[in-house]
Amino acid sequence: MPGSTLGEALRVTNFGESHGPAIGCVIDGCPPGMALTEADIQPDLDRRRPGTSRHVTQRQEADHVEILSGVFEGRTTGTPIALLIRNTDQRSKDYANLLDTFRPGHADYTYWRKYGHRDPRGGGRSSARLTAPTVAAGAVARKWLRETHGTGIVGWMSALGEIEIPFEGTEHIAHNAFFAPNATLIPRLEEHMDALRRAGDSCGARIEVRATNVPVGLGEPLYDKLDADIAYAMMGINAVKGVEIGDGFGVVAQRGSVHGDELMPDGFASNHAGGVLGGISTGQDLVVRLALKPTSSIRIAKASIDREGRPTTLETLGRHDPCVGIRAAPIAEALLALLLMDHALRHRAQCADVRLPLPPIPGHRAGG
Amino acid sequence: MPGSTLGEALRVTNFGESHGPAIGCVIDGCPPGMALTEADIQPDLDRRRPGTSRHVTQRQEADHVEILSGVFEGRTTGTPIALLIRNTDQRSKDYANLLDTFRPGHADYTYWRKYGHRDPRGGGRSSARLTAPTVAAGAVARKWLRETHGTGIVGWMSALGEIEIPFEGTEHIAHNAFFAPNATLIPRLEEHMDALRRAGDSCGARIEVRATNVPVGLGEPLYDKLDADIAYAMMGINAVKGVEIGDGFGVVAQRGSVHGDELMPDGFASNHAGGVLGGISTGQDLVVRLALKPTSSIRIAKASIDREGRPTTLETLGRHDPCVGIRAAPIAEALLALLLMDHALRHRAQCADVRLPLPPIPGHRAGG
Amino acid sequence: MPGSTLGEALRVTNFGESHGPAIGCVIDGCPPGMALTEADIQPDLDRRRPGTSRHVTQRQEADHVEILSGVFEGRTTGTPIALLIRNTDQRSKDYANLLDTFRPGHADYTYWRKYGHRDPRGGGRSSARLTAPTVAAGAVARKWLRETHGTGIVGWMSALGEIEIPFEGTEHIAHNAFFAPNATLIPRLEEHMDALRRAGDSCGARIEVRATNVPVGLGEPLYDKLDADIAYAMMGINAVKGVEIGDGFGVVAQRGSVHGDELMPDGFASNHAGGVLGGISTGQDLVVRLALKPTSSIRIAKASIDREGRPTTLETLGRHDPCVGIRAAPIAEALLALLLMDHALRHRAQCADVRLPLPPIPGHRAGG
Amino acid sequence: MPGSTLGEALRVTNFGESHGPAIGCVIDGCPPGMALTEADIQPDLDRRRPGTSRHVTQRQEADHVEILSGVFEGRTTGTPIALLIRNTDQRSKDYANLLDTFRPGHADYTYWRKYGHRDPRGGGRSSARLTAPTVAAGAVARKWLRETHGTGIVGWMSALGEIEIPFEGTEHIAHNAFFAPNATLIPRLEEHMDALRRAGDSCGARIEVRATNVPVGLGEPLYDKLDADIAYAMMGINAVKGVEIGDGFGVVAQRGSVHGDELMPDGFASNHAGGVLGGISTGQDLVVRLALKPTSSIRIAKASIDREGRPTTLETLGRHDPCVGIRAAPIAEALLALLLMDHALRHRAQCADVRLPLPPIPGHRAGG
Repeated sequence: MPGSTLGEALRVTNFGESHGPAIGCVIDGCPPGMALTEADIQPDLDRRRPGTSRHVTQRQEADHVEILSGVFEGRTTGTPIALLIRNTDQRSKDYANLLDTFRPGHADYTYWRKYGHRDPRGGGRSSARLTAPTVAAGAVARKWLRETHGTGIVGWMSALGEIEIPFEGTEHIAHNAFFAPNATLIPRLEEHMDALRRAGDSCGARIEVRATNVPVGLGEPLYDKLDADIAYAMMGINAVKGVEIGDGFGVVAQRGSVHGDELMPDGFASNHAGGVLGGISTGQDLVVRLALKPTSSIRIAKASIDREGRPTTLETLGRHDPCVGIRAAPIAEALLALLLMDHALRHRAQCADVRLPLPPIPGHRAGG
Repeated sequence: MPGSTLGEALRVTNFGESHGPAIGCVIDGCPPGMALTEADIQPDLDRRRPGTSRHVTQRQEADHVEILSGVFEGRTTGTPIALLIRNTDQRSKDYANLLDTFRPGHADYTYWRKYGHRDPRGGGRSSARLTAPTVAAGAVARKWLRETHGTGIVGWMSALGEIEIPFEGTEHIAHNAFFAPNATLIPRLEEHMDALRRAGDSCGARIEVRATNVPVGLGEPLYDKLDADIAYAMMGINAVKGVEIGDGFGVVAQRGSVHGDELMPDGFASNHAGGVLGGISTGQDLVVRLALKPTSSIRIAKASIDREGRPTTLETLGRHDPCVGIRAAPIAEALLALLLMDHALRHRAQCADVRLPLPPIPGHRAGG
Repeated sequence: MPGSTLGEALRVTNFGESHGPAIGCVIDGCPPGMALTEADIQPDLDRRRPGTSRHVTQRQEADHVEILSGVFEGRTTGTPIALLIRNTDQRSKDYANLLDTFRPGHADYTYWRKYGHRDPRGGGRSSARLTAPTVAAGAVARKWLRETHGTGIVGWMSALGEIEIPFEGTEHIAHNAFFAPNATLIPRLEEHMDALRRAGDSCGARIEVRATNVPVGLGEPLYDKLDADIAYAMMGINAVKGVEIGDGFGVVAQRGSVHGDELMPDGFASNHAGGVLGGISTGQDLVVRLALKPTSSIRIAKASIDREGRPTTLETLGRHDPCVGIRAAPIAEALLALLLMDHALRHRAQCADVRLPLPPIPGHRAGG
Repeated sequence: MPGSTLGEALRVTNFGESHGPAIGCVIDGCPPGMALTEADIQPDLDRRRPGTSRHVTQRQEADHVEILSGVFEGRTTGTPIALLIRNTDQRSKDYANLLDTFRPGHADYTYWRKYGHRDPRGGGRSSARLTAPTVAAGAVARKWLRETHGTGIVGWMSALGEIEIPFEGTEHIAHNAFFAPNATLIPRLEEHMDALRRAGDSCGARIEVRATNVPVGLGEPLYDKLDADIAYAMMGINAVKGVEIGDGFGVVAQRGSVHGDELMPDGFASNHAGGVLGGISTGQDLVVRLALKPTSSIRIAKASIDREGRPTTLETLGRHDPCVGIRAAPIAEALLALLLMDHALRHRAQCADVRLPLPPIPGHRAGG
């Protein structure tokens, strides 16, 4: 009933606040026998980490992960894997002036109304910092998927504010501060961000995530469809306001004669569906897009009220990302990995004995 | 782990196939003492029912609901409410020719790969008919929300294929076959559908759903955020490929100085957020949009394969909706009602004792 | 959160009241492809059915089960299996006089305090009749266990009131009204029951259930241990007040030098543990015992109060079992089957890939 | 599906191994606003701690608890409360010789068969040490129950091996090493334990736990009955082989005319039921008893096999409790507290609005 646990067969329970002593998670249900050390997890945390370029928050967090349990002599044991990340940069004095007001576009007001109190320390639990344990857990799922199914997951930025970022190749993603799959547009993106920072404003972004070599047959109709769970996970990322799968909102103006992906002896002829039919994976690439709103913490003053309802204005100083979308790709990748692993385990609980009356069609990759 | 149950504090377990003996659901967790009869449920089923205009499938189903349990002398008892809908129009012979091929854009292929068999009877469990039990359950949730919180939920079509439908007023919705909130555009929509039907093709649609008088404080951070659960529920509706909340994909090109909704002594100044901040309801209207793909069952032939992987072509006869979006508004309403009731019950499990240190701000509606 | 669903990977959702229109359940998660018809379920229902001897309630219920979904052409499809049992003998007028008082030893009082109302129709949801859907679901699990693992489950009465029933052999169980594994003691049991009925009183009983050919490795440490889940299921049967596994309460006075079952090259040397170590099945027989209290509905008058707290006396007429334990063996068997199947599916979700570094020890049966 | 999470509305997720870096838990769902510091938790941990007398294991563990999250300025915030206990006495070399054999009566064999590996470090996850996080979480629940409902929970030893311990008063419990509610029998218990230790053997025990001022109406029929959940929790404690509620196995030989507790204007006349009717609390004291087996780790040699199935003998050195029952009372208390709090929150999710048509009967305590 409380909501800090994700998944069914693979369960991740998240804890912590941005300026408390530590954040972390407990991963339950990971199969035993998989090689795992902190070195498998740290790189994904480093990709999400703040302070890596001038375009993201200058908060300095090592985000050093410690495995507390569930691994013995370098292999998972099948028992819960607890991951701990100590908070090291807790300058909560930055936030002292926020105690009595509500930042527009922030969760301050809703937390206060739900729980009856304010935790002014950098947003407390609503901070984007709490995506770090999810990213750490996602690294475990990503490793399992790769080793058992060859599944790969990669995310990138496809629009920064009003600038569309053409896809040139995934090899570019690691070589710029924006997770852009593009080598030529980077100076323009940097200029855009610098101007924004000077203006004290922020902008939105669009992220795309793809999974390849996805096992066929993952997803539980009727309610826990694979696409439904993807939408749940992506919309739950801080600042996300929209999620699309396959052709997404483009389907509204499509015709059925165009949309339905034809089956050929050597596979599907197209992928308008984005890898899911009837809530179950087809074996094609999963194609997911998400829209992230502009950061609400900006230097430009906005009207607000205090806790007694009196009008005030607020400009947020502190250290903030002018575009939260910039660091969102690793988060979306992690969630997609966790979901796919969860569904792969769920699938084999029920369907491990399924033998097709005929062998899978040549060219149609075997799954599950 | 299996996926046929929706919700946590209010749980709906769905069963049935489109051409089996019956479909239905079991609702567990409804508070006791609420007046309830079949007459409270039937109208919502009738709104979703096929065969009501020439623009939807001509299948004739009474969709007559029977309450099997959980109600005594016209009031809920607190025990599970089982709802039964007998299938009456089971012309499965229409589907006999589909046994050995996979309809493009349909779940035939993925069900076969997941479960190892084909149920050719109108799609079996993947049929849109299985939204009927959800709609029936939603009627119960909707009644509880209205009576306890004054919450109202209404959905409408905002685009039919490439035709945008301007919002004129909710009072028009019940007076046309399209759930259009518009009185003047109906002839054009009818022409559009008639042309489509003559062409044997289908089109997509966009639906908008809104909830008013939403209690403040609903939603469980970190993972079970209210918006995450809305995205899950909406993406799980047959044919949905995209979900937006508030400004949705429009946020990508927005500035933070525009997006963040300012708080005023008498309420919020705008609703870019669509009623959710940090995954928790603000008390403003919930604003949700979904994109539905064009029906895959069309008369125009498409390439496919049979179960041995040999190429074939397929044109779907049978009785199908040329635009599944037309009947989607009541389904989206039902799911939003179920989610809000679930979260209202979850909220009071943890937070029933919360007393704000100060009374809620005048003009900011009390919630939860 | 509401409690009408049992299990995790195999989920049974129970609905209905003893004198409403119908009772039943929805089984979700059953693997596809298993042969299943009503004829596989009805015999277990018939074993539990009332009215089969003069020693149980004379209520006449056909307990005819109908499969509403999840089976196509005689095989499970992997989608939810809904089972419906119509109530046919609803003489609720028998209970009209109970509306304003609380029967001692019954759930009348607690339901009233929990839900704020009385359902006087034979106990409504608290009736032992609601074990029928569990028994029906158990028949499905029992079939799956037998076919996939060779697991057998059998229960019997080991004490009727103060009479101990020596175990002579399971072949006797089906040949007497008491589920007694004994051929010689039956006349004495019959006399005991006849005397009790004449006195208008009731008595307790002890039931033993055993499972053979149990897969090794079932059970989830830390909390969802196999023995913990067995205790949960058995204590949840109406009237049960105690549960033992293996040597049960006998371990209090044992020494460790006696209790610990030694391992031999050809298997365990003894079974004090009752088939579970550390919450995980050992592959030995599961040995479970339960104590059932005497029926509270007796003809002998007892003191009670009415809903306004005024003293009254109550003697229960109606049709009741003078020993609810008599019909308990099929119920305990069904629950043990459901639990074992649930844990077998859960086990393979996480551990399907486990390969022992050495083959299982000869003589130690392979499991899971 | 994995089993390391306990509860529904109040969820405790447990992690760690006895000789890994740390053990702990995450408590999700605790209402906000409750005063809480480590000082509220440490005393319960200290009661369970090893090394406190010569009658328990001499392992020295500080069991120092650290609150990592969920508390701000001394009050719960409503977000997950993570508790961390570092392991400080990890002499795993003691266990090096166990790597290749299976200790009789231990989980070594079943873990190996389930997960495919051995964790010889003091039992790893199957160690009784893993009850420490449960005890810590229980302290939080106990505090909430006491402050919101006045509920008290106390456990004691009622039999040590074959020695029955007469109940003289709960005030004695804290003044001896056995949790015995008795002042006069202590020397005899000490002699018993000393003789056992000299013999290198171990013995069983029986524990009784009671809760007072229990709210009326807790428990979810049909499956998640309060007594079913109690049996689950108690049977899940290491070494427990039997659970009784109220008259327990004594009901087998009882008559209904004796068992059914009569209701009087000022309350129940007796408590054979042990505080539960129909799976729902009556408001009377909850009365629970559990049987714990003798420790399997003894110095007396027993036959066993190695991982290749060859016969061997085994005597356990290391540091072990000769009677695990001695430290069981605080564990049973903690689990009862967690269960009652979970059910209190679940109850108000569904039934917060219940108003009895008449006020509760005078003398019958108000609940929920």
